[in-house]
Amino acid sequence: MSDKQAAADFLLSHDNYEILTHAYPDGDTLGSGYALCLALQQLGKNARVINTNLPKDFVFLTEGVTDQDFEAETIVSVDVAAESLLGSNEKAYAGRIGLCIDHHQISRVPAPVRCVDPTAASNCEILFEIFPLMGVKLTKQLANCLYTGVSTDTGCFKYGNTTSRTLRIAADLLDMGIDAAGINKVMFDTKTKKKIRLEQEIYQGLEYCADDRCAMIAVTIDMQQRLGVRDDELEGLASIPRQIEGVEIGFTLREKEKNVFKISVRSSRNVNAAQFCAQFGGGGHAEAAGCQLSGTLEEVKATLKAAVNEVL
Amino acid sequence: MSDKQAAADFLLSHDNYEILTHAYPDGDTLGSGYALCLALQQLGKNARVINTNLPKDFVFLTEGVTDQDFEAETIVSVDVAAESLLGSNEKAYAGRIGLCIDHHQISRVPAPVRCVDPTAASNCEILFEIFPLMGVKLTKQLANCLYTGVSTDTGCFKYGNTTSRTLRIAADLLDMGIDAAGINKVMFDTKTKKKIRLEQEIYQGLEYCADDRCAMIAVTIDMQQRLGVRDDELEGLASIPRQIEGVEIGFTLREKEKNVFKISVRSSRNVNAAQFCAQFGGGGHAEAAGCQLSGTLEEVKATLKAAVNEVL
Repeated sequence: MSDKQAAADFLLSHDNYEILTHAYPDGDTLGSGYALCLALQQLGKNARVINTNLPKDFVFLTEGVTDQDFEAETIVSVDVAAESLLGSNEKAYAGRIGLCIDHHQISRVPAPVRCVDPTAASNCEILFEIFPLMGVKLTKQLANCLYTGVSTDTGCFKYGNTTSRTLRIAADLLDMGIDAAGINKVMFDTKTKKKIRLEQEIYQGLEYCADDRCAMIAVTIDMQQRLGVRDDELEGLASIPRQIEGVEIGFTLREKEKNVFKISVRSSRNVNAAQFCAQFGGGGHAEAAGCQLSGTLEEVKATLKAAVNEVL
Repeated sequence: MSDKQAAADFLLSHDNYEILTHAYPDGDTLGSGYALCLALQQLGKNARVINTNLPKDFVFLTEGVTDQDFEAETIVSVDVAAESLLGSNEKAYAGRIGLCIDHHQISRVPAPVRCVDPTAASNCEILFEIFPLMGVKLTKQLANCLYTGVSTDTGCFKYGNTTSRTLRIAADLLDMGIDAAGINKVMFDTKTKKKIRLEQEIYQGLEYCADDRCAMIAVTIDMQQRLGVRDDELEGLASIPRQIEGVEIGFTLREKEKNVFKISVRSSRNVNAAQFCAQFGGGGHAEAAGCQLSGTLEEVKATLKAAVNEVL
């Protein structure tokens, strides 16, 4: 029995679901969460999505979801690579997850049933394949949710994780009549004026190291407060450093609290970002990973530069 | 008989081809040109591609093309909406085109056989469908060429012209084992350091009008020379103004020669960019079009602002 069949059987044989998404939610975890919630409700079950927060650009995913009053019995995590990534929900849910659906290479959520497919570019791809096994009928709103995950986790089909399977799934979703271009415009092509000013400032602080094979940018709390930039407006910054010609590994440092930095790492094919982050207790994908470092901005930069010189 | 069958029959029954691409060549015209050249050579015919120039990022498209010595007999244009868009090749080739393969809404090249399909997101989509009718075998290098057109003309499947047909064609091309992510990185995600400095300067000159529903940026000859930025490094700038939240029409002004500006227009769905450009003798697609205006930078901006106030 395939993992997907096992997941479908689990979902059909339980009820009263809480679906967990990861902290700092993105299009794939939220698209997965609301798609699964809609699918379960379509089958007459009770379900709700549990987020740490819901950025305003993703509110459209909640359309069609019914607010149901029930006592939770079954916990499912979607696109969550480790319980620690549940953020403020970790304490309440750790150890209680019954089904983990995930696509990360390193996937560590303990659960009696695990459906993990790292060949899927997005978690939504996996759900697209589980739903028919459950007898779920694809609807336009399900397609909206799944497309959001499929598109955002591949950089709109730009990155190396995109396969012909990804593109054929996206084609089937487009056939449901969704406004894919509208979704993509919000996800990839919309910048607020404040964000433009922030980018200007970020570029001014752009630093190179390792013979320009590494570049790094930083967003401090001060910059964010001064320009009034919301957290969800920081999406997309992580890809800036690696876009520079010749750069093989790029860091985006984001100050989460005073002297604590979240580091987003993006690399070209010959540098493993997940391995790089592992030395600092982080993880992720081969070309996109993350970790956390404490210290002043200059200290954190120095730590990263030293580590890069080991790798490059 | 469909247009595509007519095009296939034409291509099978002639020989000694010159394939014309449009001036300021992009991924779709060049991808189409080299794909068609490879296809014809695969069938034992003579063919070459005629460009005004070949930006270095596109040189990989020429791989596998044999340099053949022959006297041209048959002229085919690919992705050329009007003879005036042949640039420096217009004089030599106008009135001599035997087959026009194009996907523009307004397509005006006079030719005895015309295969024009405006429902195709890219010209390469059309060729993908013509090749089987000619008995051409899809190869990896053909797939490289076709993918480049399919991807670049849809903004990597991001824009509203992308259909499920587009995505299924892209899936078939990926199945040929091409390095799609590598192509996309060059086409969409690589910036030189000079280009980053140029963008900085462009953002400083960003102007809004019509209650911030219109934004415009400009690249002058002075800026380009001072920063040493090549023409082909200016690709992608056209999408900047419309990316700003609330902007419905965006202009990118590029000074081609002193006081002569090429205007790239990008619009949201409720404003027709092609119609807007038509009043200045230009044209293009509903959401992406272009025209040319003469005058000082300030004069050209004033002309555009006045025209925008008529439309918005």
